[in-house]
Amino acid sequence: MQILLATTNEGKVRELRKLLEDFRVEIISLKDVSIKFDVKEDRSTFLENALKKAKEYALYYSIPVVADDSGLVVDALGSMPGVYSARFYEIEFGGKVEDQAKTTDQKNIQKVLKLMEGEKNRSAKFVSCVVFYSPEGWGLFAEGECMGEITEYPQGNKGFGYDPIFKPEGYDRTMAQLDIDEKNRISHRGRAFSKLSEKLSKIIT
Amino acid sequence: MQILLATTNEGKVRELRKLLEDFRVEIISLKDVSIKFDVKEDRSTFLENALKKAKEYALYYSIPVVADDSGLVVDALGSMPGVYSARFYEIEFGGKVEDQAKTTDQKNIQKVLKLMEGEKNRSAKFVSCVVFYSPEGWGLFAEGECMGEITEYPQGNKGFGYDPIFKPEGYDRTMAQLDIDEKNRISHRGRAFSKLSEKLSKIIT
Repeated sequence: MQILLATTNEGKVRELRKLLEDFRVEIISLKDVSIKFDVKEDRSTFLENALKKAKEYALYYSIPVVADDSGLVVDALGSMPGVYSARFYEIEFGGKVEDQAKTTDQKNIQKVLKLMEGEKNRSAKFVSCVVFYSPEGWGLFAEGECMGEITEYPQGNKGFGYDPIFKPEGYDRTMAQLDIDEKNRISHRGRAFSKLSEKLSKIIT
Repeated sequence: MQILLATTNEGKVRELRKLLEDFRVEIISLKDVSIKFDVKEDRSTFLENALKKAKEYALYYSIPVVADDSGLVVDALGSMPGVYSARFYEIEFGGKVEDQAKTTDQKNIQKVLKLMEGEKNRSAKFVSCVVFYSPEGWGLFAEGECMGEITEYPQGNKGFGYDPIFKPEGYDRTMAQLDIDEKNRISHRGRAFSKLSEKLSKIIT
């Protein structure tokens, strides 16, 4: 059985391969398909975005697809950036950040830190939803969370996205200061993928 | 294990009980819960509506929930009534139907037949999406379809909804002229529920 992981991120591909290594499943990624197209993530929840992506790719390529959508949810910002996590810097909420010299990650982080200036309640969570969609018209999904808080300034250079300003519960380091194995064990995405692969393994074998 | 079926329709409850009778699962319905509330089905797809309903009830009542959303998709009407199937008569598309003397089903049917007057392409399908959502943050879903065509006038008095004007492929009678067992075997909802319970049985046992 072949499964398409809807990503071009080799790290995610390796991770899913590891989780499903006991099963006769071959994981390919969007790097391995010849005709490429993007699916617009325009839904209001992570689960709906992941579902939309998995379904559109599965029906187009006629193979089972695993897709995920993840983001940061900050209590004091009314659950923002949420589904806007990847492009938080450019949405109207809280003002846009325009700085050509910075990467998208840096602009997103700058905006969150600015909006959180002086804020006492720094509670936040990373949320990940991962969906398996079979072109036979059925599927599985799992959600994973990682509770934590927003730091006062960025620390660490591992990981990506908001990792440098997110300190997981029970840790005195940010997500960007953790080794990849440790991050995968406690991260929202790691938890969602483990949950999904545990259920999936019971169905596809 | 107890599962809440998000419906007050006893027919659906009986059907799911039958499909899961080999497993140690007790099916209860919204009739059996004390605090009742409605979930607004405001999404743009059947799957997203069913997912939203299943998730909101599961998180509120803290038990696994099965929810479905279904409807009629007519090719010549640009896939309408779709997610508006239950209240097609009152939406702007194609003009509202106001007739106090008629039931909702009758008004919806009247509108579809009027919009289909003189239309040669009468292809349509019933679509059903059913979702199992566990409060542990994972779930399963399945989609079922029943291809067919829109008749020129209503026939039969079994079933409900658009059944009297829908003739399934390979049949010379409408869905409203079929016995309940025959309908369940070929219907969109029957197919979706069988697919879901087949997968679910591998996970929950």
